[in-house]
Amino acid sequence: MADSDVKQWVQAHRDEFLADLVAWLKIPSVSADPQRSGDVAGSAQWLAGALRQTGFPTVEIWPTPGAPAVFAEWPAADPSAPAVVVYGHHDVQPVDPEELWETPPFAPELRGEELFGRGTADDKGQVAFHLLGLRALLETTGATAPPVTLRFLIEGEEESGSPHFRRLLEQRRDRLRCDVVVVSDTGMWGRDTPTICTGMRGMIDCQVDLHGPDVDLHSGSFGGAVPNPLQAMADLVAGLHDEGRRVTLAGFYDAVRPVSDRERELIARLPYDEAEWLAQAASRATFGEEGFSTLERVWTRPTCEVHGIWGGYTGPGHKTIVPTDAHAKISFRLVADQEPLEVRKAMDAYVASAVPTGIDATVEWFGDGVRPCLTPLDEPALKATTRAMERAFGREVLYTREGGSGPEADLAQVLEAPVVFLGVGLPEDQIHAPNERVVFPLLLTGAEAAAYLWDELATMPR
Amino acid sequence: MADSDVKQWVQAHRDEFLADLVAWLKIPSVSADPQRSGDVAGSAQWLAGALRQTGFPTVEIWPTPGAPAVFAEWPAADPSAPAVVVYGHHDVQPVDPEELWETPPFAPELRGEELFGRGTADDKGQVAFHLLGLRALLETTGATAPPVTLRFLIEGEEESGSPHFRRLLEQRRDRLRCDVVVVSDTGMWGRDTPTICTGMRGMIDCQVDLHGPDVDLHSGSFGGAVPNPLQAMADLVAGLHDEGRRVTLAGFYDAVRPVSDRERELIARLPYDEAEWLAQAASRATFGEEGFSTLERVWTRPTCEVHGIWGGYTGPGHKTIVPTDAHAKISFRLVADQEPLEVRKAMDAYVASAVPTGIDATVEWFGDGVRPCLTPLDEPALKATTRAMERAFGREVLYTREGGSGPEADLAQVLEAPVVFLGVGLPEDQIHAPNERVVFPLLLTGAEAAAYLWDELATMPR
Repeated sequence: MADSDVKQWVQAHRDEFLADLVAWLKIPSVSADPQRSGDVAGSAQWLAGALRQTGFPTVEIWPTPGAPAVFAEWPAADPSAPAVVVYGHHDVQPVDPEELWETPPFAPELRGEELFGRGTADDKGQVAFHLLGLRALLETTGATAPPVTLRFLIEGEEESGSPHFRRLLEQRRDRLRCDVVVVSDTGMWGRDTPTICTGMRGMIDCQVDLHGPDVDLHSGSFGGAVPNPLQAMADLVAGLHDEGRRVTLAGFYDAVRPVSDRERELIARLPYDEAEWLAQAASRATFGEEGFSTLERVWTRPTCEVHGIWGGYTGPGHKTIVPTDAHAKISFRLVADQEPLEVRKAMDAYVASAVPTGIDATVEWFGDGVRPCLTPLDEPALKATTRAMERAFGREVLYTREGGSGPEADLAQVLEAPVVFLGVGLPEDQIHAPNERVVFPLLLTGAEAAAYLWDELATMPR
Repeated sequence: MADSDVKQWVQAHRDEFLADLVAWLKIPSVSADPQRSGDVAGSAQWLAGALRQTGFPTVEIWPTPGAPAVFAEWPAADPSAPAVVVYGHHDVQPVDPEELWETPPFAPELRGEELFGRGTADDKGQVAFHLLGLRALLETTGATAPPVTLRFLIEGEEESGSPHFRRLLEQRRDRLRCDVVVVSDTGMWGRDTPTICTGMRGMIDCQVDLHGPDVDLHSGSFGGAVPNPLQAMADLVAGLHDEGRRVTLAGFYDAVRPVSDRERELIARLPYDEAEWLAQAASRATFGEEGFSTLERVWTRPTCEVHGIWGGYTGPGHKTIVPTDAHAKISFRLVADQEPLEVRKAMDAYVASAVPTGIDATVEWFGDGVRPCLTPLDEPALKATTRAMERAFGREVLYTREGGSGPEADLAQVLEAPVVFLGVGLPEDQIHAPNERVVFPLLLTGAEAAAYLWDELATMPR
């Protein structure tokens, strides 16, 4: 196949693709809203139909205790070809505040190059381009099956935290055997800077509760002579970082895979603008671990962040008490190869050792955490993805990571395969906010990249 | 006069004293309740009448923008005799929760040796014993005037924070000239351990507000790369103490008058029981500045206490944000000769230096603070008070201090006179709580001590 043929085919089917996508976007598949569960099911049905139309011989709706996932399978002609799981999701974020939308969230509208509507970028547009790309590949090559075995798994609860996803993976592991996982639920640095995401941070978080005196005490009569739980909390939270803003938990950095010089060099080549970044962060200064740039800090370094602290008198004026209790919500973002449960153990031990006698401390963990995931730059599947993207975009492709956390690590771990990210969203797409949009031509470029990717993966050195 | 005569006279007038006091206690002079302002005025009128009956030639009601104070003057026969201002208050605490009172708060009742009712100990009982004591002194000596010039100032807003008291002192300074101030609004260590309070801590307090990002940020995307105001607050609060639990503000201890070996020795002789103290503190361990005992910590050492901290997400479950704001309420208890405004300056400077770039900090102060007060053990008026108490109680008198803060420092400062405390309340009197009581025989002993005090002050070396 010639790349120009694929490009031409994709462009020629632009209107048809738009019409199909718009039909899907009109289904308000908000997984967080119990009243929309019928729509989420309808969205799964729509996608199942589209997958069948694309030619997938096997298409199934996989129920979960929550919203259904869609599974589709198309074996390669060559049984020794690699198998690929493609991950995305068909549910969308809630739309409130709805009054801030310029056009209704479920009445998608193309204005100039931008397609507006809930789910355009996150994630229906990025699932849909795979179907277009696959058709382009088959039509332009005349093949009757893809060059790799494709197994699509498009879940329906990602915007609700994927509560049943890991169990679904474990239960269906046999159906999901694969050599590579392709995740299409992320974005690129910018329209003129195509990039591939190579990792996401993991996370584990907790609430710390400290109990001191059984009643609020008069600080004149008792202050300075009993442990104050708020002071103990401040000491505890302050003690989580050292002077260089490194996390102090025992062994915290032991398993951290250091970022390579090569990756640091590539990160430094991104057109990062500190003023622009600060504007996005609504902040006046950057701050963080010594020895790392801002992008390195949010992408490649583990962190500890405090999300809430409360206790004592918080009303107007003053009330000079030694309060009974103090509370804090604290999370740790993790990078490969940190284990959430190891961090949890270290934090438990730290809290137990950090509070003075007379303060009772409990740590409540919000689940077992999310593992970090990272695809090394020399991973063959990543190199294949890079080539596919470079063919589609006609320029050099750089690398990013995501500072956030998602179910991708579960895919890597349960399916025992490397994860690569193929996404064409942009930071300004307003996902999760009113007026979500996607640059429509980027979806077409994404379709091209997807077409090339199966080709590249089929021929990569294994 | 023979002490036995005074004792006998006081005992002989026990019932009459009780009946008078009960009449006063029935007036619900709750200064915090605007609906009771008529009762507070009635309480002032009642006291004015009682002072006139005692023989004071001058009795005046002094209005304030709030509740009235009562002033009474009785010059000594000898114009060179010392002048004494006697301070107390005729207003009382609110009574809620009223359902916890075993007998109604304003229907005083003597049960065994205890007189129950709001104001019995704090402070009507302790003002009233002065009238009984003065009558006993005059009757048993046959004098027509006290041996010192007495100027009573009994305010009506102490339980509301004495909001107009300092201005009243300043406006009436000429009428309140004195060599000694006697405060009767405190207590003793215990019924079998008569003590004199020699000082109170001062106080100044503030709210610290920190502002970071202008919107809550996703901690995955931004965590670890912008300053988190809650982390900054924890660092700031933690940094207020060093390892030895000393306050770190610059110059904080410079003006602290060290507690003398003699006073430490006397404090150590008090029958302090740590388990009992901890039970009162509803706490499981003591904690505080290294090198000082618990009583030394609350009485003789300045402290920094945090009363409230809040910011970020404080609801159920988790929300992994970098929050916009953090707040804390912080006070400093001060000892002689610390100046509240110096501490304020040091704290302002500390906050400005403690927060990282990108965090905006403001410190709001709740007023100019309350000065500490301290009567040295070698102060002649204190020695005279000690002798008076020892004559009344027939045993050695020890010394305490109060960890709390009150208007006493204003008396010392505006009137430029040493302050001594003559009080017979007990820690278990339940002042400010339901079922306030006083040990009635202690009021009679207090009357005796008051009688001896004028005698002792008249003859003290000056």
